[in-house]
Amino acid sequence: MADNKKLVEAITSMEEDFAQWYTDVVKKAELIEYSSVKGCMIIKPAGYAIWENIQKELDRRFKETGVENVYMPMFIPESLLQKEKDHVEGFAPEVAWVTHGGLEPLQERMCVRPTSETLFCDFYANEIQSHRDLPKLYNQWCSVVRWEKTTRPFLRSREFLWQEGHTAHATAEEAEERTKQMLNLYADFCEEVLAMPVIRGKKTEKEKFAGAEATYTIEALMHDGKALQSGTSHNFGDGFARAFGIQYTNKENKLEYVHQTSWGMTTRLIGAIIMVHGDDSGLVLPPRIAPVQTMIVPIQQTKEGVLEKAFALKEQLSDFRVKVDDSEKSPGWKFSEQEMRGIPTRIEIGPKDIEKGQCIIVRRDTREKTAAPLEKAGTVLAGILEQMQKEMLERAREHRDAHTYTAENYEQFQQIVNEKPGFVKAMWCGDAACENQIKEDTTATARCMPFVQEKTGDVCVCCGKPAKTMVYWGKAY
Amino acid sequence: MADNKKLVEAITSMEEDFAQWYTDVVKKAELIEYSSVKGCMIIKPAGYAIWENIQKELDRRFKETGVENVYMPMFIPESLLQKEKDHVEGFAPEVAWVTHGGLEPLQERMCVRPTSETLFCDFYANEIQSHRDLPKLYNQWCSVVRWEKTTRPFLRSREFLWQEGHTAHATAEEAEERTKQMLNLYADFCEEVLAMPVIRGKKTEKEKFAGAEATYTIEALMHDGKALQSGTSHNFGDGFARAFGIQYTNKENKLEYVHQTSWGMTTRLIGAIIMVHGDDSGLVLPPRIAPVQTMIVPIQQTKEGVLEKAFALKEQLSDFRVKVDDSEKSPGWKFSEQEMRGIPTRIEIGPKDIEKGQCIIVRRDTREKTAAPLEKAGTVLAGILEQMQKEMLERAREHRDAHTYTAENYEQFQQIVNEKPGFVKAMWCGDAACENQIKEDTTATARCMPFVQEKTGDVCVCCGKPAKTMVYWGKAY
Repeated sequence: MADNKKLVEAITSMEEDFAQWYTDVVKKAELIEYSSVKGCMIIKPAGYAIWENIQKELDRRFKETGVENVYMPMFIPESLLQKEKDHVEGFAPEVAWVTHGGLEPLQERMCVRPTSETLFCDFYANEIQSHRDLPKLYNQWCSVVRWEKTTRPFLRSREFLWQEGHTAHATAEEAEERTKQMLNLYADFCEEVLAMPVIRGKKTEKEKFAGAEATYTIEALMHDGKALQSGTSHNFGDGFARAFGIQYTNKENKLEYVHQTSWGMTTRLIGAIIMVHGDDSGLVLPPRIAPVQTMIVPIQQTKEGVLEKAFALKEQLSDFRVKVDDSEKSPGWKFSEQEMRGIPTRIEIGPKDIEKGQCIIVRRDTREKTAAPLEKAGTVLAGILEQMQKEMLERAREHRDAHTYTAENYEQFQQIVNEKPGFVKAMWCGDAACENQIKEDTTATARCMPFVQEKTGDVCVCCGKPAKTMVYWGKAY
Repeated sequence: MADNKKLVEAITSMEEDFAQWYTDVVKKAELIEYSSVKGCMIIKPAGYAIWENIQKELDRRFKETGVENVYMPMFIPESLLQKEKDHVEGFAPEVAWVTHGGLEPLQERMCVRPTSETLFCDFYANEIQSHRDLPKLYNQWCSVVRWEKTTRPFLRSREFLWQEGHTAHATAEEAEERTKQMLNLYADFCEEVLAMPVIRGKKTEKEKFAGAEATYTIEALMHDGKALQSGTSHNFGDGFARAFGIQYTNKENKLEYVHQTSWGMTTRLIGAIIMVHGDDSGLVLPPRIAPVQTMIVPIQQTKEGVLEKAFALKEQLSDFRVKVDDSEKSPGWKFSEQEMRGIPTRIEIGPKDIEKGQCIIVRRDTREKTAAPLEKAGTVLAGILEQMQKEMLERAREHRDAHTYTAENYEQFQQIVNEKPGFVKAMWCGDAACENQIKEDTTATARCMPFVQEKTGDVCVCCGKPAKTMVYWGKAY
């Protein structure tokens, strides 16, 4: 087990330095590599395969609601970006500008899309004429660029992968319904597939998307008690439609503006998975999203029949995403690698197991070992993976709940934020002044006004005036 | 059928003006829309769904050969692009340059990737140390930018979608084997899935990829007799490895350079499908790639029980990609739309059919009608789709063979190229001078030196000196 120790020692302990632990895991689990373009990362096979599974599952869920995929250009002419005032103010300071095509300067510079509202609006203005053209339910999978100053793998990078849905509707009600529908789809996906509980709610005016009427968000709590915004869904009302002239004739033959939404999830989710489930041995992937669900590790593999049996077991388990590690490394080293990469289970099989007609299934999260009769390996493994998926969500929920506090006055609020990492539930008057004050005093921000409101007091925790709403506050990535 | 005529009249006849026919089909089949960025297109749902099916099928085939997906940054610093001399000369004149990030000018300008050899090499230089790290078999799905002067939807656009595989191997032999393996994979995919026959061969020195030692290609013949390069696979030898210092220690502990390959296919394939299979009623999609394989069109749908039966049939056919057109349009209009969009079959079902317990299956390519008993609709449809897929390939092969000529001397060669659109097989001495002469005199280029050589003469068709190889010549997109 000397090997084992070596690999594990390569990563910093979570309790010692969470940020360094994160960076170590990202590298040692071979999820990313840094590139020669500052702030842009290379997503390696183990990282990209997680993204592929996220895509597959989200895409299926989108399509079930009638969404179709399209592809828009990656460039936005400057004049187009400027059409909606709030939007350009929000994004212009952080876009990358293309000024030359080939050897010639461009007549008008273009930015690399930071998001594609303006392109979709330009498209919809031509595409939508009549109420019969509505709704438009489009999505695209692509990469976007935001020229951030400080970057961290998955969490904040200058280029990242995402999906962006853009819909257009005849009525305000339909747009609002779609905005919430997609937020709930995101939340269900996080809980059911990523085993990550989230708070569903609305962003404050200060925190909403540039150009939106309302932004809904799901907020998750990472292991270190910091919040991560994990998906957002925006209702634009008819703001963009007015700026871009997107009108349709209704059934009474009158011109109306459409109502629009957009919603997105990104490779940031991979960062969330790491920070919700990981431990001091590395990554822990929920079975439903894991690119490899079980790694078969042959013990004493040079002994006759062992490798043969290991590969026969792989065949037998073909309903699962399964691999055999038949490399020349020691079993201990293989265990460490499987643990570092977060593969949910490993199956140990050696001469003694074969003699007994069994294999040993070991869970990544609890290290619990189960001896399974070979002929029933599939059924036992299915049960273990299902149980693990369920318990991972429960553990994450318990952790979040244990790190969610309630503050009734400002002294208490500041003390909690300073001393206890996590969410703080506290009442708010609705004034931006209090929100700004809280950020200045504590660095905590309003994560969301949850859909499920609890009244934790009568007055604003900051100013003492009558409160309008309960807010989840927290320090965030 | 007045409606029908109206929609069909909206497209130019192929024989009259093939280029205009192509543009009309691309628009009327709702595959693309032009965007406000010149030379960049919007891929609409009907077009993108074809690309998704291409991706799914190619990706599966790649993975079966051990390839893993990754994602590299979309930007390449200028100094990195310049590391391999031939490569930068080939691409620098047509890249888009990013000069500003946010409000600040960049210290070094970056181009948007026209292709990612340089990024992969930079990555491999760090990633590969030992023979145990080899081979690396990576691929990425992304968009690339080439600042072309003249653009056409799918065939040549400033931004397009593609996959680019990049592999690194210990030996020259292994790299050569992989180069050919991927070319054959492409060819098989085109024939089996797109029903598009291709010539497999090698590019001349003049036509090979910038920086490659050898480029292999598959060449298809479009309906108008022009050739389309449909996929390429490059063997780089150790040229890039020397420029980027990608070395590994072999089993004898000596430093060696790796040998590399790259290979790509693009959204251009959608253009190929249109131009190989389309007709004067629009697009014709091979069943295996069609996003919708059959459109059920209810006849007299307001009559009791018709729509009900149509949707019951849809349920029954859930093994296929099937839709019901229950819009308020007339059946004739629905037929035209289904034909324009190239949906391989439609199923007509009306009160009389229901009475007889049947439905009518109509093939898109031949218009052949088959009455199928309702309870056997699935079996009959499966047979029709299979037959159609097979016959589409056969017809395309016959068309290509009927437009493939042999020239024994230069007079004959020029006459064929000028008068008969298609491939010309002719012998070549191997000198670039003759290749250039031919291009100057006829605008035909050497499409490829086919793997399957036939000796069509002894001397070069251009200069009369002893010939080295037989070449497929043609005018190309």
